[in-house]
Formats: sequence, C-alpha cells, structure tokens
Amino acid sequence: MTVRNLFLLPGDGIGPEAMGEVRKIIAYMNEAKNAGFVTDEGLVGGCAYDAHGAAISEEDMGKALAADAVLFGAVGGPKWDSVPYEVRPEAGLLRLRKDLQLFANLRPAICYPALASASSLKPELVDGLDILIIRELTGGVYFGEPKEIIDLGNGQKRGIDTQVYDTYEIERIAGVAFELARTRNNRVCSMEKRNVMKSGVLWNQVVTATHKEKYADVQLEHMLADAGGMQLVRQPKQFDVIVTDNLFGDMLSDVAAMLTGSLGMLPSASLGAPDAKTGKRKALYEPVHGSAPDIAGKGIANPIAMIASFAMCLRYSFGLVAEADALEKAIANVLDSGIRTGDIMSAGSRQVGTAEMGDAILAEF
Amino acid sequence: MTVRNLFLLPGDGIGPEAMGEVRKIIAYMNEAKNAGFVTDEGLVGGCAYDAHGAAISEEDMGKALAADAVLFGAVGGPKWDSVPYEVRPEAGLLRLRKDLQLFANLRPAICYPALASASSLKPELVDGLDILIIRELTGGVYFGEPKEIIDLGNGQKRGIDTQVYDTYEIERIAGVAFELARTRNNRVCSMEKRNVMKSGVLWNQVVTATHKEKYADVQLEHMLADAGGMQLVRQPKQFDVIVTDNLFGDMLSDVAAMLTGSLGMLPSASLGAPDAKTGKRKALYEPVHGSAPDIAGKGIANPIAMIASFAMCLRYSFGLVAEADALEKAIANVLDSGIRTGDIMSAGSRQVGTAEMGDAILAEF
Ligand SMILES: CC(C)[C@H](C(=O)O)[C@@H](O)C(=O)O
Ligand SMILES: CC(C)[C@H](C(=O)O)[C@@H](O)C(=O)O
Repeated sequence: MTVRNLFLLPGDGIGPEAMGEVRKIIAYMNEAKNAGFVTDEGLVGGCAYDAHGAAISEEDMGKALAADAVLFGAVGGPKWDSVPYEVRPEAGLLRLRKDLQLFANLRPAICYPALASASSLKPELVDGLDILIIRELTGGVYFGEPKEIIDLGNGQKRGIDTQVYDTYEIERIAGVAFELARTRNNRVCSMEKRNVMKSGVLWNQVVTATHKEKYADVQLEHMLADAGGMQLVRQPKQFDVIVTDNLFGDMLSDVAAMLTGSLGMLPSASLGAPDAKTGKRKALYEPVHGSAPDIAGKGIANPIAMIASFAMCLRYSFGLVAEADALEKAIANVLDSGIRTGDIMSAGSRQVGTAEMGDAILAEF
Repeated sequence: MTVRNLFLLPGDGIGPEAMGEVRKIIAYMNEAKNAGFVTDEGLVGGCAYDAHGAAISEEDMGKALAADAVLFGAVGGPKWDSVPYEVRPEAGLLRLRKDLQLFANLRPAICYPALASASSLKPELVDGLDILIIRELTGGVYFGEPKEIIDLGNGQKRGIDTQVYDTYEIERIAGVAFELARTRNNRVCSMEKRNVMKSGVLWNQVVTATHKEKYADVQLEHMLADAGGMQLVRQPKQFDVIVTDNLFGDMLSDVAAMLTGSLGMLPSASLGAPDAKTGKRKALYEPVHGSAPDIAGKGIANPIAMIASFAMCLRYSFGLVAEADALEKAIANVLDSGIRTGDIMSAGSRQVGTAEMGDAILAEF
C-alpha cells in the first residue's frame, strides 16, 4: 500500500479548528479509499513559542523536511505581538518556506459563483473569475541581507532591507508560471517595477529570455506592479496567470483574494523544485486567510480555505487529480445549496458552524 | 504686486495637452484677478532625452529649484522603452523628487459623486469616498544603495535594491500625516510590513513615538500593508489619512485611485520641508495618471487631473484657499452638468474633447 506522509501544523487562532475538518476528510479517505495517509502533528507560531521559545522547534522542522507534504493552518495573534522579532509567529512560516526551499507559491483567486455578490466589486466583473497568482517565495526583500536596524547615534536609527534576485531564481519561478499557464488559458502576465528597481530590470529580462527559449507558445505580457494592482481592480478577468516577486506577490494576491468575495475560502500551495532522483517536490499548503484571533475557539470559523488547501495537496503532491476535483466540487455544491459560515452569510442562506460546514462538504465528497 | 513663479514641465504623451488647459486658467487668473503668475517652461522625460540626451537638463533642474512651484504633466512612452536606464523618462521625475527633496506626496482619492457608478466597486462602497494617502517620496527602495545588477559569471546576474529608512525621514512624513489629519477627520492609518521588514519595524516604532509625543489627539491605527490593500478594496471609506512608505505608497495609491472610478481625474502634490527662513516649501504638482501615449495628440485626453493638480498648487504653495475651493467646485459642477471626456463617458452624457472640457471648467470658475 502507498504510504503518504502528511505533517500537520495547525498553528494559532482558527488554525486548529480549520485543520480539524481536514482531519475528518483524511480519515474518510483512509477508510473508504485506502488512501494510506499517515499523519503527524507539530507546533508552529505562537503556540510553538509558548511551548519551547521558538516559532518552530528543530524537531518539527525535521519532520516538515521529511514529510511528503505539510498542511499549515495559520499563525499569530495579539498575545505574541511583542515577542522578540526573531521568534515572532511569522518566523516559523518564513523558516519553513526558506528551509524547505518552497520557492513557488500558487495562489488561485477564484470567485465561487454562489458568492459573486459578496465581492465589493460589481458582480459582472468577478463572476467566473479564475486567476492564478504565482508568487516567488524564497527570495526578494523577505530574505535579502543586510536586514537590520542600525543605531546611528543622536537618537537616529536606520532600518535596512535588501531586495535580491539572481537569474536562476527568476528563471525557475517563470518556468512554473509558463508550465501552469499551458494547463490553463496559456497566458502569463509578469509584474515588477523595472522603471524604479534594478531587480525589476533583471526580472523583466530573465522572464523575457525564458519565454523566448522555452515557452514561446505561451502568451506573455509585462506590466508594472502598480499598474497591475490597478488592473486587478479595474478588470480582473483580463488575467490568467500572474507571476511576480515575493513582496509584490504578497500585496497583489491579497488584493486579488479580496476581489473574489471569497476570502476565507482561498487556498494556497507552496512548492519546491522536483527532487533530482524521485521527482517529488517539497510542499506546504495553507489558507490565504490569517489566524483570526477574534473568532478563534468559537467553532464558527470557515474551514473552506483549509479544505481547499488540502485539495491542492491531493493534486500537486499526490497526483490525486480526480479526488482533488471531487473535493473542490463538493465545496462548490455545498455553497450552491445555501449553507454558509458566518463570514459569508447572506440573506436566505442557512448559517452553520465550522464542524457542520466540514461535515456538509464531507457528505458531498 | 505678488510675483508667483511657476515652472511648467508638460513632459510626454498627453502631458502637453493637459497642461494647455491649465495655462488657460493661469492666464485668466492673471488677467481677471491680478494673480501675478509668471511662468517658464522646460522639458522632462522622453522629450528631454530627444532634445539633449538626459531625462531633464541641468538648466531645467535649476529652474525647477528656483521656482515657487513646479507643474508636471506626465512622462514616458513606447518610443523610449529601450533608452539606457539612467536616462529613461522616469529618471527625470525621480531626480526632481530627490533634488527638490519632495518627501511628502499627497494623493487624495476622492470619488466625484457624478462618477460613482464608473467605479468597479459597488457604488455604495465608494460614493462620497475621500481618503488622503500620504506617501513618503524621497526614501525607501527607490533611492537606497546598493541598487545595481552584478554579473556573477556563469550566465548568472544578481539584481539588488535596498530599502533604507532613517528615523528622521519617518518622523517628518508622520508629522505631515498627523497635521493634515487634524484638518480632516483626525484619523491616521500607518501601513508597513513590520512582520517581514526591519524598515517596517522602525517605521512602526517611529510613527508610534511621534504620535505619542506630539499628536496624541489624533486617532492612530497600524495595518500591515497587504491587509491594507485588502481593506482598501473591502471597505475604503473606513480610512481618513493613510501614511506609508515610497513603494507601498506607489501600489496602494494606485489601487485607491482606481477604486474611485475617477482615475484620470486625480491630482497629487509633492512637498518639501518648509524653508527655515521663508517658511516656503518646494513643491511639484502632477496628475496621478500617466502619459497615455495611445491617445496623445488627439485632443481627447481628460485634463481634469492636471487642473485639479493646479488647484492643489493654489492651496498648498500659495495659500489661495478660496481659489482652490472654487476651482475644485468648478470641476464638480461641470461633471454634474453631464459633460465628459471619452475616458469617463457614460450613456446620457455629452462627450467633449480636452479643450472643451478645459473651457467648461474655466467658464464655471
Ligand atoms: C504572515 C506573513 C509573513 C505572510 C507574508 O508576508 O508572506 C503572509 O502575509 C502571506 O501572504 O503569506
Ligand atoms: C513613473 C514612476 C517612476 C512613478 C513611481 O513609481 O513613483 C509613478 O508610478 C508614480 O506613482 O508617480
């Protein structure tokens, strides 16, 4: 029997509740379909800091590195707002991304038809929206050195961050974007600020060269990142795949997620390079939403983004494409049937809690 | 008689056409109201490169430095897409900002009621919207060193940009934001990425300290910049004044501008520190929109952003508050009367060209 090793890091806030619903689906797949999932679980973020003074322990890092895939909930909360910078909750997530070399972050921004009216955009602009944002995740200003605060004396300090991109980093993320575009509508839009940033100039050159050498069949467009933000708001359906750097990707994917009206519903996948021998990619799957400490522990959080992240896991880590499709379809069906958690509640729908939503999706699966 | 020195830099694309309409208003104010404007004119951007191989000449830089205020149109176009980085059209604008030390960029995002339905957001979310984004303009990743592309050999290059902020830079832009908030709804939201960037940590600390020391009467909130982008889309009216760094300000102000449905209508002011002796600030006023090369020279461009930029000039450089109010009112009245340029045309309105729009506003003024 195939063994599939999953490492679960529920984290803080609503992370554990959302992860609970995924656990049900895993159990069902093991029982009913002999899926062979073996799970282990660790701590990340504030709860890890509370337990052992670090945002993730060495032991858990080891387990994450050894697993076939990591499922990640959410980290952070007011309780840890003033812990030292090096051990803040986010540091756990950033270390996972860096040490597992998860350079490719896939953030689908799709609009569930049942929720089109929940968007702040006019429904006709988002109905049927299906964009895939590919964000570079292990480079740029997130990790470049120097990154420090220097004391200049006289009451003056200097905060420094460094944006660094090497040719190979741009090449490999561009490759992911072009490959995935081929499975979709075959269009890539690359975004940077080449009019201001040297890393943007290099980004533009390398994407252009990669396209010319290997992916000339894909339609490629370049856009300045600020104009890209505008165009996302103006006419989001013009895009198919967007590829951009770590910081712009952070901003643009959040704007795109909010546009869909389906925030709290959106999953993401962070992938490494295929292993030279096995062809396997390291991978981490996490919802786009945060830890929502204000509603944590109440059993009302929306588990859909976490479940949809597990669907991405089925697809990208285990090649279980039919199962991934079925799980995504189950989510859409449940929404169509008018079942809603509080965050997406609207008149005429039936409001349920986290567990009921999970059960409804499992029943449709 | 007061002499008021204006230096006009129409630039490229639709810049000259838009500036033409401001020239009419200046002439009228001189004639009818003895306003004492003395104008001189120079080249910036692509046209400056064509004339003398630089994005702005030393002579014109001298004139910009000597003027009471600079009116700037727009720069750039496909013609100059492959000129060397150092002399690209944008370099002229960046040099003006840096050498005139225009550290405070004021970008109002207002929704003209007559245009609320032109927004891609639902009208009720933007109707009456009035946000002021204060963007730091002479620091951050735009100007920090090193900023270069290094050849690493083996076909590999490295693109580097550096984000740098010193305490005094954050203090002075925070001061501008708090001061202006006091003239509005007394609320400031500061945006950075302190969870990832050390410059963001310092930004957050200095804004907090400045607030505590001098502006405790103003309501202050902090938001991560990615969450800020989301909130702008979700519920833009929650904001009064937003203060943020150069790069986040670039992105967020463009998103905000697009939300209003009034892009092509929005002005901006870039201000320096008050002179120790005279109290005067160096200043540059420019529309938020670009050079729109596709419609340049056709007499159809919307001159409203340029005219509204001149209204900001009347207000901030010359203290002509009544005149600024009257000019802004004239713009709103003309829109209310149903006159539109092509970019904001809608059924039932009357479409006019650049000059007619300018004349209509002048007639209302
Ligand atoms: C939590 C934070 C460090 C993270 C980021 O900035 O990358 C988050 O905003 C995200 O987009 O995943
Ligand atoms: C033209 C460009 C250099 C400029 C910037 O990035 O600042 C523009 O986008 C702006 O917002 O004024």
